[in-house]
Amino acid sequence: MSELEADVVVVGAGLAGLTAARGLVAQGASVVVLEARDRVGGRLLNHDIGGGQVVEVGGQWVGPTQTRALALSDELGLTTFPTYDEGENVIEWRGAPKRYRGPIPRIGAHVLADTLRAQRRLEKLARTVPVEAPWLTPDARTLDSQTFDTWLRANTLTAGARTLMELATEAVWAQEPRDVSLLHVLFYVQSAGGFDDLIGTEGGAQERRWVGGSQRLALEMAAALGDRVRLSSPVRTIRHGEAGVRVTTRSGTTAHGRRVIVALPPVLTARIDYDPILPGQRDQLTQRMPQGTVWKCMAIYDEPFWRADGLTGQATSDVGPVRTTFDNSPPGGSPGVLLAFLEGDHARRASTISADERRRMVVGCLTRIFGPRAARPDGYVERCWAEEEFTRGCYGCAMTTGAWTSYGPALRAPIGRIHWAGAETATRWSGYMDGAIRSGDDAAAAVLAAL
Amino acid sequence: MSELEADVVVVGAGLAGLTAARGLVAQGASVVVLEARDRVGGRLLNHDIGGGQVVEVGGQWVGPTQTRALALSDELGLTTFPTYDEGENVIEWRGAPKRYRGPIPRIGAHVLADTLRAQRRLEKLARTVPVEAPWLTPDARTLDSQTFDTWLRANTLTAGARTLMELATEAVWAQEPRDVSLLHVLFYVQSAGGFDDLIGTEGGAQERRWVGGSQRLALEMAAALGDRVRLSSPVRTIRHGEAGVRVTTRSGTTAHGRRVIVALPPVLTARIDYDPILPGQRDQLTQRMPQGTVWKCMAIYDEPFWRADGLTGQATSDVGPVRTTFDNSPPGGSPGVLLAFLEGDHARRASTISADERRRMVVGCLTRIFGPRAARPDGYVERCWAEEEFTRGCYGCAMTTGAWTSYGPALRAPIGRIHWAGAETATRWSGYMDGAIRSGDDAAAAVLAAL
Repeated sequence: MSELEADVVVVGAGLAGLTAARGLVAQGASVVVLEARDRVGGRLLNHDIGGGQVVEVGGQWVGPTQTRALALSDELGLTTFPTYDEGENVIEWRGAPKRYRGPIPRIGAHVLADTLRAQRRLEKLARTVPVEAPWLTPDARTLDSQTFDTWLRANTLTAGARTLMELATEAVWAQEPRDVSLLHVLFYVQSAGGFDDLIGTEGGAQERRWVGGSQRLALEMAAALGDRVRLSSPVRTIRHGEAGVRVTTRSGTTAHGRRVIVALPPVLTARIDYDPILPGQRDQLTQRMPQGTVWKCMAIYDEPFWRADGLTGQATSDVGPVRTTFDNSPPGGSPGVLLAFLEGDHARRASTISADERRRMVVGCLTRIFGPRAARPDGYVERCWAEEEFTRGCYGCAMTTGAWTSYGPALRAPIGRIHWAGAETATRWSGYMDGAIRSGDDAAAAVLAAL
Repeated sequence: MSELEADVVVVGAGLAGLTAARGLVAQGASVVVLEARDRVGGRLLNHDIGGGQVVEVGGQWVGPTQTRALALSDELGLTTFPTYDEGENVIEWRGAPKRYRGPIPRIGAHVLADTLRAQRRLEKLARTVPVEAPWLTPDARTLDSQTFDTWLRANTLTAGARTLMELATEAVWAQEPRDVSLLHVLFYVQSAGGFDDLIGTEGGAQERRWVGGSQRLALEMAAALGDRVRLSSPVRTIRHGEAGVRVTTRSGTTAHGRRVIVALPPVLTARIDYDPILPGQRDQLTQRMPQGTVWKCMAIYDEPFWRADGLTGQATSDVGPVRTTFDNSPPGGSPGVLLAFLEGDHARRASTISADERRRMVVGCLTRIFGPRAARPDGYVERCWAEEEFTRGCYGCAMTTGAWTSYGPALRAPIGRIHWAGAETATRWSGYMDGAIRSGDDAAAAVLAAL
């Protein structure tokens, strides 16, 4: 047990919390960061695969319009490299795998046209959403009264288009179209700048990766913050009032400050005890922002054999349970790493089987798509953040129907001396590393103005 | 700090927890009940209005098919009396208030026919739901992929029918049709035995009240349990394993047992620290069961003046924000109490204004409906359970879209030595006092079988 004192207490050493702390320190404020885990980075985590190489078992990509993340990367002296994207992609579609080049899969023209028309309609609607206040969208109630599934049924003619959009939904939210409010989908698309920005590799959110792994963003910031960051310090209670804040960890460490920034997934912010307690509006908002579900699985081979075969390693499948793959090899291409996602319902079902069964299932999908050389990986790594006490789901969260229109203003509004940060509170690139960093900037600015 | 030991530790002294404890003790098991508040009853709470009279600021009614609640009432020597239902009801509908007799309001015949047709369709669909496993309903995915709002738009022809169904939705779930999965609505209807069972006064869930207030059910059970019930003991951690369970409160009291029954609203069960932590499926389920929102407001008058005017005190309004009222006077009819509900969005908005404004707003509605004598109550009582740390919303919770089909089995399944109880886990009269009691019976039986 110890007593700490700072101008600002930050809860959570993910990108949002660390960025906020960094910004505050740069402006001369004193800061203490309380992190529940024995490491920093939150949903960013490098995994050592030997030979000085890492793969990320959490968030990893950055796209060209994620300018805040790229700027921070520069400031920290980090470098990025392109996601391997040379050759042909594969799609399993109504039968055997087919190869194709570029972003448009080789499937029936009417399905493609139907899909593109739906995407265009979606983007047109998305442009009506003010990202700072989605509840002020024209006809917000109607948009927030239906699931994305309902909208897709009304706005596609082909089952194929619905399947493609379902694949995209799983890839972006790790949820199913029925899990998500249409208004949230529109907000998210607008927050990212467009649908292709979300799902694209080249030009999109999956374009580049960090040399040394994405967690380095967090590790470098934490190193500069030094002993301001306290690990293994899960916050249990936040007392707040006129006199300031008193934040206490499970083990009894107490940090006193003038303000507190809580930089956790919204659902987890409600698992802290507040004194006085949070208003009902804020608490009930957190009951309506469920986290997604994804198993991120990587099979490791001596070399990226699919490259010699003319393949990018990117595959899409309407069969599943692995529905999306990527080449996730380190910069030099050695070893070869195939990344396979189980998302949404596929991930939920995968959580009910044993680790051995899951590995067999994933490797089986890779073998079906990439051939017999995929059948015997040298290594296998997997992670499901729903099973992690201090994340409880990935990639991020998605508002359920009604949440934005009934509770939206409670998402970002400070409560007395309590400020909120985290990818989910961002207006630009909400749910992404870029959004998390921006939310840290915003929280730091708001706190500095109030100190 | 103290150390307690029992066969079974029960978390929560609401109806579910107390019923479970009572059942276990009756079978010779030793029990300790840890209750967060300084009183028992959970969402049941009597409020003293003087002269030996009480009104309930929480749950209060019981209907004729809620046989388990009525049986428990008999066992405890309690008596009920009919909700005041003599005279004419009032409906504010597209203009000035109108009086009518019986359950069918005086509004256009085509709206009524449209509403009844929708209700009949809903009940027909509801009969296809196996209440023990709603995810096995024929076409469960489709039913769980849309909100109740979406279904209503597709299954009504008139705006009037949609308004009436919205009123019913607010009255039953304290949520809006857009907040709730259609499959959950069907489950709930089936669990209650029918739509009229949910919304009815005579013959329905609002038929009778308890002499002395509904909280007496909890108070009598707690009295018999004696010092097995520990008040002001909010549970902080549950350690569980082969050797048993160890349940620790915020203040450090520890209770050891062979099994634990957690009898809290599902969302609150996730705010306890578990060691080992809960599986992702269970945790993510709790992220998809938001509690409703309701301000229960009562204006107290020297006498129930509306009775002399030939009114039941029951009113429905398409104006709002008070959309439903009842005569909530004590058995003898003195003093007169008008009960006004602000539900769903009306409640959420009412949470953002001051207590004075809210009282003026509520009394204004009552005056509009019941005339100038309603304008000057002698007393006024209100409660919003969303603002209560140990409830966080009422009446109960409603599954969001996708929750039943993706996570349903995690609702009732024990996790090792942890069992779940509470109104939300019931299959018969889910969400009601009757369901809470049945869930307590079930949990006690399951634990006894395992001890």
